[in-house]
Amino acid sequence: MLTWTFPTAELRDMLGEPPAGVRVGLWDQLVDDEPTDVPLDEVDAVLAPDWVVPEPFERIARAPRVRFVQLSTAGYEHVRGVLPAHVTVANGRGVHSDETAELAVGLVLAQLRGIDVFARRMAVQYWEPGLVKRPSLAGKRVVVVGAGSIGTEIRARLLAFRTTVTLVGRTARDTPDGPVHGVDELPALLPHADVVVVVIPLTDLSQGLVDAAFLAAMPDGALLVNVARGKVVDTAALLAELGSGRLRAALDVTDPEPLPPEHPLWRAPNLLITPHVGGDTPLTEVRVTELVRRQLAALLAGAPLENVVAGPEQPGG
Amino acid sequence: MLTWTFPTAELRDMLGEPPAGVRVGLWDQLVDDEPTDVPLDEVDAVLAPDWVVPEPFERIARAPRVRFVQLSTAGYEHVRGVLPAHVTVANGRGVHSDETAELAVGLVLAQLRGIDVFARRMAVQYWEPGLVKRPSLAGKRVVVVGAGSIGTEIRARLLAFRTTVTLVGRTARDTPDGPVHGVDELPALLPHADVVVVVIPLTDLSQGLVDAAFLAAMPDGALLVNVARGKVVDTAALLAELGSGRLRAALDVTDPEPLPPEHPLWRAPNLLITPHVGGDTPLTEVRVTELVRRQLAALLAGAPLENVVAGPEQPGG
Repeated sequence: MLTWTFPTAELRDMLGEPPAGVRVGLWDQLVDDEPTDVPLDEVDAVLAPDWVVPEPFERIARAPRVRFVQLSTAGYEHVRGVLPAHVTVANGRGVHSDETAELAVGLVLAQLRGIDVFARRMAVQYWEPGLVKRPSLAGKRVVVVGAGSIGTEIRARLLAFRTTVTLVGRTARDTPDGPVHGVDELPALLPHADVVVVVIPLTDLSQGLVDAAFLAAMPDGALLVNVARGKVVDTAALLAELGSGRLRAALDVTDPEPLPPEHPLWRAPNLLITPHVGGDTPLTEVRVTELVRRQLAALLAGAPLENVVAGPEQPGG
Repeated sequence: MLTWTFPTAELRDMLGEPPAGVRVGLWDQLVDDEPTDVPLDEVDAVLAPDWVVPEPFERIARAPRVRFVQLSTAGYEHVRGVLPAHVTVANGRGVHSDETAELAVGLVLAQLRGIDVFARRMAVQYWEPGLVKRPSLAGKRVVVVGAGSIGTEIRARLLAFRTTVTLVGRTARDTPDGPVHGVDELPALLPHADVVVVVIPLTDLSQGLVDAAFLAAMPDGALLVNVARGKVVDTAALLAELGSGRLRAALDVTDPEPLPPEHPLWRAPNLLITPHVGGDTPLTEVRVTELVRRQLAALLAGAPLENVVAGPEQPGG
């Protein structure tokens, strides 16, 4: 019997009937020292809550039999050093890919075609297409900075709009879907980008990557979209380019975040802001449930687990 | 020597160097009885202005040698009966497909993910994702009513978002890309549609197609997007469904259009309006120029012309 706990009853219920040999329990480690319905010392595997804080993992570390921890987040910095070395940890890579990729493309379309501007103008009840035609996405050259699962999903969607997409990752490499360029090539790539979408994870390398020099390399009228983390973009440098009218932007993440009232970004021209909703749809729970179902099957079969980021490749191994 | 006229200098200049054997001229039939730079009786072919009124075609009919008229619009009702029977007329099918398809998808994404709502909320400078999660497009079932070039382009884009797309045309038929369902199947299809995109041409059949019964067949919370013509949708019936909060909508076209100030649509809940900008981007001129270039080559070679909608298949034939 394998005992797996979920942090909420909703997620537990989405699994439906557990596979043979699996018992499910309820344990929200943000709140509770132990599960509400199964003994702490019988828990083998847990789906952790999605808050990126260490406290839940300190509680999990006290469950003597736990050997597998599934995260729903892609990031796992908050887990490092908290769980014992014999516990296998898998992250939520891919869980937010579809929803974040589609928001990125939605922001590109909204900004290029002026959907945000027309939405605001509905309040004045005046039918006016505007003197200047808004550009089409078709034919545009897009650079996507971030070549992980979300960047790849963004590319797949953008290609359907007859765009040219260049993927940029930490280092240059070849993939079955084409080349990934390294960040060191950005100075050569940016001058030819009509649109730049940033979805690179926040690391020491990427913090402040989109600085004044990065923005200056983008051509006049280009669009910057950030669905990564706020700190990847230098807010002051972006404000300068927006204020001069040279660049456009759409941000789902900001630095600081949440963006406080009176922050100059709120009133910057040619800017569209959404409040970090890229990975925040009902699809998240669907994708987490699909991942849990696959991991359960792998655990029962002794088969390879997906997304292992810490601990042994195989729990108990 | 083949003499072809353009309605604007911009369009003429976009062609660049004309092919050997072609002379280009300037003739805006909205204003001028004859070309400004070539003799009226030497004009063989014209690109007509894009206003859907008969007057330009009355002027064209007076050019004795004209045998081919290229429209940039898909519609050609305004040409019928105005030009002599020996003049071949081709419409602009496909010219607006990419730009209209991408606006349709942009409206779907904006409405589902709340981009329009967040754009409006920027004015209050408050970072708030909202209590209710906005739905993802991934996994949604979309019915596209209109199986022409724009409907086909909408499907291609939507499929990249992991949706299920059902195409509906005037009559059921099989195509290399899958089946097209007939409008008579709508009562069976609509109850399973999360999103309905309307892009069917305005005809006696389609006028008022989206009436109270059509809307009632859509499930609670479904989204209607209209990028066809305003009169395809019964405005009063839509207002009733929006007012009750049962349906959502995004309209690039309205009835009446332009939408006058104080019209109740402006303040209807869960509605996003853009002022008929689907086919209104700089891409239009690019696509028209590409079409003119192909038609010129066909005329010179005596090869089949594209998009012939009236007159002989072959000019002079």
